[in-house]
Amino acid sequence: MRRILLAEPEKGGLAATWSDGTTSFWPAIWLRDQCACPVCRHPNGQRLFEIGDLPEHPQIGRVTLQGGSVEVVWQGEEHTSVYPPDFLYDSNLKTRQTPPIKLWGADLAALPEADWSQLERDPFEELAWLVSYHLHGFGLLRNVPARPGMVAEVGDRLGFVRTTNYGRLFDVVSEPDPNNLANTALGLGVHSDNPYRDPTPGVQLLHCLISDAPGGDSILVDGFAAAEQLREWAPEQFDLLTRVPATFRFADKDTDLQARTPLISVDTEGRICAIHFNNRSFAGIEGPVDVVESWYEAYRNFAQTLKQPERELVFRLAPGDLLVMQNERALHGRTAFDPNLGRRHLQGCYVDKDGLESRMRLLRRHIAKARQAAQ
Amino acid sequence: MRRILLAEPEKGGLAATWSDGTTSFWPAIWLRDQCACPVCRHPNGQRLFEIGDLPEHPQIGRVTLQGGSVEVVWQGEEHTSVYPPDFLYDSNLKTRQTPPIKLWGADLAALPEADWSQLERDPFEELAWLVSYHLHGFGLLRNVPARPGMVAEVGDRLGFVRTTNYGRLFDVVSEPDPNNLANTALGLGVHSDNPYRDPTPGVQLLHCLISDAPGGDSILVDGFAAAEQLREWAPEQFDLLTRVPATFRFADKDTDLQARTPLISVDTEGRICAIHFNNRSFAGIEGPVDVVESWYEAYRNFAQTLKQPERELVFRLAPGDLLVMQNERALHGRTAFDPNLGRRHLQGCYVDKDGLESRMRLLRRHIAKARQAAQ
Repeated sequence: MRRILLAEPEKGGLAATWSDGTTSFWPAIWLRDQCACPVCRHPNGQRLFEIGDLPEHPQIGRVTLQGGSVEVVWQGEEHTSVYPPDFLYDSNLKTRQTPPIKLWGADLAALPEADWSQLERDPFEELAWLVSYHLHGFGLLRNVPARPGMVAEVGDRLGFVRTTNYGRLFDVVSEPDPNNLANTALGLGVHSDNPYRDPTPGVQLLHCLISDAPGGDSILVDGFAAAEQLREWAPEQFDLLTRVPATFRFADKDTDLQARTPLISVDTEGRICAIHFNNRSFAGIEGPVDVVESWYEAYRNFAQTLKQPERELVFRLAPGDLLVMQNERALHGRTAFDPNLGRRHLQGCYVDKDGLESRMRLLRRHIAKARQAAQ
Repeated sequence: MRRILLAEPEKGGLAATWSDGTTSFWPAIWLRDQCACPVCRHPNGQRLFEIGDLPEHPQIGRVTLQGGSVEVVWQGEEHTSVYPPDFLYDSNLKTRQTPPIKLWGADLAALPEADWSQLERDPFEELAWLVSYHLHGFGLLRNVPARPGMVAEVGDRLGFVRTTNYGRLFDVVSEPDPNNLANTALGLGVHSDNPYRDPTPGVQLLHCLISDAPGGDSILVDGFAAAEQLREWAPEQFDLLTRVPATFRFADKDTDLQARTPLISVDTEGRICAIHFNNRSFAGIEGPVDVVESWYEAYRNFAQTLKQPERELVFRLAPGDLLVMQNERALHGRTAFDPNLGRRHLQGCYVDKDGLESRMRLLRRHIAKARQAAQ
């Protein structure tokens, strides 16, 4: 573990030198806001003061090292803060590593998968699968008991099932009078589900119960990889798809859902963070005529990029397979099937993204604790 | 109703002249993509083709008026589309009106409210309340039976309850060892709930079951109005709060939720669309030292703006009152109360924004149909 050799006030903040020779600096206001003393934080970790309760320019007085931690006495406040070295090291204000992701195409060497019964009893297996799921934006679970309702049980273990107008879970079967083309035997181009919803479902689970009809293979495409390619090939088109929102709509007798969102969303740092793509529920865009025409060109190009065979991961779900997808990244589709020559029955549900992230952090914490206890 | 007097091909699209003398123009690709014939759309309204299936530059051939609708024959495609005048009028590519909102402060003349039993049996009442709720970002329901669990029933009527680590619904009471400061008797500054969640809950319901402790008044502040004020007073500070994301965190023994989001989110058109503000669960920001210092100044200023007495709507919830808030707009807080002199018990739950919007559109549709039938 790194140790702090030297800590002292520097203009407007605190400077420290680490045992490996590197140095760090924290602005006084940042440091004061992070004070974790019992006056500043409840035992549950929640902050007890508001930003307006702090001095506008906190003044660092005496700084000492106390058993490896840095103790800061604040001038004019009669307040003392203690910062453990681990906390300071993790928070040294370099841009935090965002969770890594791995873009993929048809040549992905191995599906990120795990056996359900192993994952259920082994936290290491579950953590490894979750890490792989977060890297790829999807993961496959094998040998999940192929019984109705099971998909929602898995959803509630990984996070929390989100009920929608389709219910807590939904069946994907060929129906005579479907309110959604998912429930036909038609092939479906890759898409994200429910872009007409606000918020769009973050994660979709699809569990195969029966699959003996010819056809109906699953297709997955990494929407982030396709969008990165568009950004490289045609930056103005990429830009247009991030700036001009599209409207999506789903309406039946009980529902009229509409949402407006760009096809490609980028976060405040320009990283691609969501794809909304669904030809069936795309309602339209508005804007000046020249923007509309340019937008359609970009839309067409992006659709072509998504359809390149080298992007398409094609595989067949067998009964017991359960696919977990980041709905705004791993776009999914299927080939047509023949409902006269066999049956195909999937069940699906939606959960929120944060549940799976929380579960991953929790498993990391439990495993680290178990290791410490074993030492 | 407006009628189309004249429709004819014009360079790259279709031009029409309306009975009031105004003209409209639609680019050919937009128009072709909107074709609603049985080849292009399933009876459920979903599009059957993909953008790549259309010619890149569709050519408009013969254009005729047929009983008020515009019929377009597409050259080289053997395809005919018919566009009703209402559809064309609604879609004439002017920037669509976004739903209007009304910014408010402490001087809001009347709370947007309705009586629950009236709303339950009268679609007009429900629609009027929903319109007012959407305008203000919150609404109050009176005389909702003050029994446990009722809040989730109301949630499921207005939309769909979202289950989280706090359960399908949660109790807000003073507890001895709370994992959240909501469950103390402390006053709470105005905040949005769960900014550490992705997605953040869109709508919060809070139902008052018991309120006989002194104190514990509710405070509501229009976060959009406060952010607009910051934009006017200090545009660079506003800009900083939209660009530099903050991390929020909530962790207890079963959960470790973290999300990164700016305090103020704007949509692709620069309109304020979400506020994330919570001193208790704010974890920190990262970035170069000068950005951190400027960000804290902006944060402090925004917090001050939110605390201005002329922004604070203060009122007391009585048993049976149920507050419905857009969580990312109507920030809420409470004054401290004395748990030794009486009890205070609220129950809350979260639902998604789109459910209430869908319900509003559905009521509009039903009421319009009922009117037509009555004529």
